[in-house]
Amino acid sequence: MNKSNSFLNTDAWQSLQNQFYKLNKKEFHLKNLINTKNRLKNFSKQKCNFFYDYSKQRIDEKIFSELIKMSEELMIREKFSDMTDGVIVNQSENRAALQTATRDFSNRKIFVDNKNILPDIIQVNKKIKQFSLKIHNKTITTKSGKAFTDAVIIGIGGSYLGCNFVYNALLSNYQTKLNLHFLSNVDIDCFGKTISKINIETTLWIVISKSYTTIETMANLNQVMFYLKNNDLTPENHLITVTSKGSPGDDPANPVLESFHMFDFIGGRYSITSAVGGLPLSLAFGYDVFENFLKGAHELDEHAKNTDNKKNIPLISSLINVWNFNALEYNAAGIIPYSDALSKLAPHIQQLSMESLGKSVTQDKNFIDYTTGAIIFGEPGTNAQHSFFQLAHQGMAFPIEFIGVINPGFKKEQAEFNGVDNHQELWANMLSQSYALATGKDNNDNAKFFPGNRPSSTIIIENLKAENVGKLLSYYEAKTIFEGLILNINPFDQFGVELGKLNAKNIRKEIIEKNKNYNYEIREIDDTSKFYLDLLYSKRLL
Amino acid sequence: MNKSNSFLNTDAWQSLQNQFYKLNKKEFHLKNLINTKNRLKNFSKQKCNFFYDYSKQRIDEKIFSELIKMSEELMIREKFSDMTDGVIVNQSENRAALQTATRDFSNRKIFVDNKNILPDIIQVNKKIKQFSLKIHNKTITTKSGKAFTDAVIIGIGGSYLGCNFVYNALLSNYQTKLNLHFLSNVDIDCFGKTISKINIETTLWIVISKSYTTIETMANLNQVMFYLKNNDLTPENHLITVTSKGSPGDDPANPVLESFHMFDFIGGRYSITSAVGGLPLSLAFGYDVFENFLKGAHELDEHAKNTDNKKNIPLISSLINVWNFNALEYNAAGIIPYSDALSKLAPHIQQLSMESLGKSVTQDKNFIDYTTGAIIFGEPGTNAQHSFFQLAHQGMAFPIEFIGVINPGFKKEQAEFNGVDNHQELWANMLSQSYALATGKDNNDNAKFFPGNRPSSTIIIENLKAENVGKLLSYYEAKTIFEGLILNINPFDQFGVELGKLNAKNIRKEIIEKNKNYNYEIREIDDTSKFYLDLLYSKRLL
Repeated sequence: MNKSNSFLNTDAWQSLQNQFYKLNKKEFHLKNLINTKNRLKNFSKQKCNFFYDYSKQRIDEKIFSELIKMSEELMIREKFSDMTDGVIVNQSENRAALQTATRDFSNRKIFVDNKNILPDIIQVNKKIKQFSLKIHNKTITTKSGKAFTDAVIIGIGGSYLGCNFVYNALLSNYQTKLNLHFLSNVDIDCFGKTISKINIETTLWIVISKSYTTIETMANLNQVMFYLKNNDLTPENHLITVTSKGSPGDDPANPVLESFHMFDFIGGRYSITSAVGGLPLSLAFGYDVFENFLKGAHELDEHAKNTDNKKNIPLISSLINVWNFNALEYNAAGIIPYSDALSKLAPHIQQLSMESLGKSVTQDKNFIDYTTGAIIFGEPGTNAQHSFFQLAHQGMAFPIEFIGVINPGFKKEQAEFNGVDNHQELWANMLSQSYALATGKDNNDNAKFFPGNRPSSTIIIENLKAENVGKLLSYYEAKTIFEGLILNINPFDQFGVELGKLNAKNIRKEIIEKNKNYNYEIREIDDTSKFYLDLLYSKRLL
Repeated sequence: MNKSNSFLNTDAWQSLQNQFYKLNKKEFHLKNLINTKNRLKNFSKQKCNFFYDYSKQRIDEKIFSELIKMSEELMIREKFSDMTDGVIVNQSENRAALQTATRDFSNRKIFVDNKNILPDIIQVNKKIKQFSLKIHNKTITTKSGKAFTDAVIIGIGGSYLGCNFVYNALLSNYQTKLNLHFLSNVDIDCFGKTISKINIETTLWIVISKSYTTIETMANLNQVMFYLKNNDLTPENHLITVTSKGSPGDDPANPVLESFHMFDFIGGRYSITSAVGGLPLSLAFGYDVFENFLKGAHELDEHAKNTDNKKNIPLISSLINVWNFNALEYNAAGIIPYSDALSKLAPHIQQLSMESLGKSVTQDKNFIDYTTGAIIFGEPGTNAQHSFFQLAHQGMAFPIEFIGVINPGFKKEQAEFNGVDNHQELWANMLSQSYALATGKDNNDNAKFFPGNRPSSTIIIENLKAENVGKLLSYYEAKTIFEGLILNINPFDQFGVELGKLNAKNIRKEIIEKNKNYNYEIREIDDTSKFYLDLLYSKRLL
């Protein structure tokens, strides 16, 4: 085990270990910690109209300052800044990670392979703006002159999770110009469900794949092409591609309605501010809304890059995660937005965090013996209270990030119930949960005893306008990257998904043979898989 | 610590501890275990057209037989059988737990408080059948004679999660007669989203609340009543209640279109086979489909009750969970159905399992020091592969339950891609993942090294017809209850949700005062909550 580059070997972490004795002391129980003087004031930060409260985390001034020191020792923010300048931070794949450049509205230059990349990015956005306008003002219509009403994203993982989160968030505050749908799963029932919801005649299909080789996406695209043909419709009128320059999806030999470029230096799970999110969101809400989303993300990017560590919100948040998973030994974290419109946030962050941080080697490829990525899961509150909060209060403890939105999107007249409106009821619940988790409650009846001391953070934004959704996105991206940098892992690669793909290829090969010749005897795979393929071909249990 | 009634004190667990030395041995690595002779045959069971494969769990014959012995020592199946006979198994609330009775088509009698409960259950189902038929054949219409097109469930937690799972599963195989929507969250934006999807004139609203006091549900109902009134519509024409006999929702003074009874001996998260699921699902698909769902659930209930422990699928599965969380010390489990139609299964089981098992006291109210409930989460495959499977393969290990469906619902002509159809591609991936997780792969490049030895089970059903969805439901219910019985906890109560409710009440009180008088100074709550209410009233960050 080479720990030379690990946070475990920093002076600050050594010093933090001297603090561990406190953790189970009575005065360190959150019910007491949160009552220390100026707790909220000292353990919260507000920047860019984004409020972050970590007063209910199991840390004190000393631990906080050591965590900050650790980030300074490790030069975390400098490395983050390098990333935004185009340094090859994704070393294993020899790539830059320039998601921040896709929302950079400054006039600076960022070089990749000695070429300033910003003009290309601006060019793509301009094309998105013009194209979506033409759809909205009916310059581009169906062959028979009808306006398009729906767009289906054909894409999986990073090609849809982020867009699904942002689309659902913005639905609460904006009228749609087109409705979006997501054809992600290769399961044919996903295709079946999708076509049951649309009018094929007025639907656009947007294939999103950087390489244009992702099996699921290509299989679904193939299915869609078959379906278009059966309905006498053509890709020239209905299909749009978002893909790398020069990929098969960008080949004039395969004519489509329009094609938008993705860049090599932007990874799938970080791609929502590129054309991956830009095109669908501009079609749904108009380019201006998407641009505001970018502006919000950029504002928080700048904060992450430029603000001193001890006031840097995503950096503090990432240090707390490292503390929670490595000092306090939690194994999971919940994301609980008290906002129905943020119902797809947790699935997006689940990917962003678990795919970025679920690693077992350092950047320099030594095996790791500390906790990297944890399980991330969540549902909106108050729903979560009626689902798994029993366990959160009395079972296995896990830290939670609450998110509150000051103003709901719903603007029409509404009723009050028992003297409060629904939004106030929602907030009363959010506030009560973080407090109850922290304080607990004694009871002579053990079944009604609450241990408390369960940490949480709370994020508050003013509303779900595009700028704020952009900030939320940037916050989670920066937090994840900071965590990766502290843990000395590469948050941009995902070699862990390769073995499954390789095995699937072997199994697929056998299926292809058997599809060609039903008497072919499957042999090149393990016995159990063979047994299962027998069930599949028999169409029943045996 | 009183361990007298704990599984830790059984002879079998003592004997199991003598097996722990094996766990890290090379021959016990799953890549070797799964190649032992007749592994699949000996470590799988098939009953009721339900196939359960536990050959990729980290157990051998000896461990399996000791786990079975443990369940015999603890008389788990006898206790389960008692439950189905109406014994008060929910001791802390002094109630029976008779979800199995709601699908019991035998002619037996089950007594609660000296009264046979089956006639009442049959009566409710009969009423559901007649009522849904009247809606479908337009005997009951809107005031202006139109057919109803949509139904919105107003309910939270157990009043909607199960129904949402089953509704989405059945959508893949059945045409709807009415579309269902779910108004669960008290967030006013949830109401806003709901009304954007329906035609108010032809919509039924189904309030589901046993006590008719659940705050979120009552607040949403109040909002709906306000909305109906504004649209000149009445509850007599549009509102249905599913509630306890004699609750305010069952009061003739508050006239509604129809009212259906829930029973005290059925808990929320176990209520999907009562009127809670029965009414909405019958409206959506017809009563016959719901009845087939019940029949499937009953068939697996009988298996759970009557089949010898060593062949008992949900019992074996529960023992493996206890083994995984307490001997192998995993902290979370994934549920990964390779079926888009099962996308709402994991959120339902998340509630079912985490609310049932996230406990810290035994039935006799002693504190516990072993692992009870773990984190349960999941997304459908192959989507999950492109989200968090990086971590599953190379990060923190957690056991997974895969679910495969032999026949998809989609029956129309489809294309092949590269020689396989989409459903075959789906299965190739499912099989490859469990294999890759088990076997891992050596590589000189540490970043491409897969440790393997990551356990999984696989469930196979023939299709998503109602009977099979019923079996899936019963399997998870029985598994959860068996786990509770092994852990000696009460899987039917949820005292852990009370403290949050109590705190919310205190906060709500202050809001009510301030709503009455804006100059009222909030004081009776903690400073942090006060700060947050200031933001809420200011409608912005300060």
